[in-house]
Amino acid sequence: MTVAAREPQQERSRQTRERLLAVTVDMLAHSGWSATTVTAVAEAAGVSRGAAQHHFPAREDLITAVLEEMFTEMTAEAAQTLDNLPDGPERIDLVVDRAVAIYTGVPFKAALQVWAAAASDEALRELILPLEAKLARAAHKLTVQGLDPDGRHGAQAHRLAQLTLDLARGLGLADTLSDDSARRAQVTAAWVQQLQSTLHT
Amino acid sequence: MTVAAREPQQERSRQTRERLLAVTVDMLAHSGWSATTVTAVAEAAGVSRGAAQHHFPAREDLITAVLEEMFTEMTAEAAQTLDNLPDGPERIDLVVDRAVAIYTGVPFKAALQVWAAAASDEALRELILPLEAKLARAAHKLTVQGLDPDGRHGAQAHRLAQLTLDLARGLGLADTLSDDSARRAQVTAAWVQQLQSTLHT
Repeated sequence: MTVAAREPQQERSRQTRERLLAVTVDMLAHSGWSATTVTAVAEAAGVSRGAAQHHFPAREDLITAVLEEMFTEMTAEAAQTLDNLPDGPERIDLVVDRAVAIYTGVPFKAALQVWAAAASDEALRELILPLEAKLARAAHKLTVQGLDPDGRHGAQAHRLAQLTLDLARGLGLADTLSDDSARRAQVTAAWVQQLQSTLHT
Repeated sequence: MTVAAREPQQERSRQTRERLLAVTVDMLAHSGWSATTVTAVAEAAGVSRGAAQHHFPAREDLITAVLEEMFTEMTAEAAQTLDNLPDGPERIDLVVDRAVAIYTGVPFKAALQVWAAAASDEALRELILPLEAKLARAAHKLTVQGLDPDGRHGAQAHRLAQLTLDLARGLGLADTLSDDSARRAQVTAAWVQQLQSTLHT
């Protein structure tokens, strides 16, 4: 095969992989863990089962790739948000919004299905725990940087970042059964007020 | 049948029902939604399938009864905690501990399995949403009473109670994959400090 022929093939392969991952996230969030098999994902993505299994031999490979992709996207988006944060008190607003957004989107609803399945599946739990820890560390680091860019609040900023992320996770869970956005806006505003008065901005 | 004979029978029936509910909570938390059928629960409880179906014809009846029982226990325990709260600043400690305990026990892990299943099951969602709303209202009311017994903090106490419960839910979710108790103790202490300085106690 020539180099010229190989490149479009690699590009097609990359696109197939991306499509399989996107379908997996949607299917987990809307149809649940049991329904989300490699075969079902391949069918919904319009990809042959063989092609899907070439990328992801087993469901565990698909799930690991989905969580890795979530990690990459989350850190990229958060880093971009950080670069564009204003200096005034609305900075805190945006950091909290960003944290809440991590836990209220479709990817979180997909992750929730994986967590629920992992509660009774030790092999799955061992697989996702390191990814989960990596994600939690990255989210914490980015939230600390957002809340306390010059580091003058030290350990207090670290604690407030933890509170922000645990609160955001709780708000995410409250949104799984019904649209909780109106209540969430009030709770988020109350938390921003707490942060602003604690960090004196 | 005489009255004397009927009473022990009613008592046995009540005990069977309680045992089925207790097994259901454990099975949901440790084996997940798919595994928790009326047949599996009956077998694990040492009850005949017929006797189990007499109490709970379908899994939905079992789940509804479990959530109702959680509601009753949670409100009873919380009311008892309220009656025994001291007046000093450690009051807030105890109220936060109580809220976090609601979301970190085995019953919460069981409820999480029901929520995860309900994400892709509209009939189940319709069934549990009113129970979930009732539970959330009761937890909120009790937390407000705990944080602000004389009502002098008004709307602010309501907002802080919401934050406390959303945070507790987030901490509960963080505890599903691994034991998060050491980190949780720090986050909880930071939140108690926030509450104490906001409520000036």
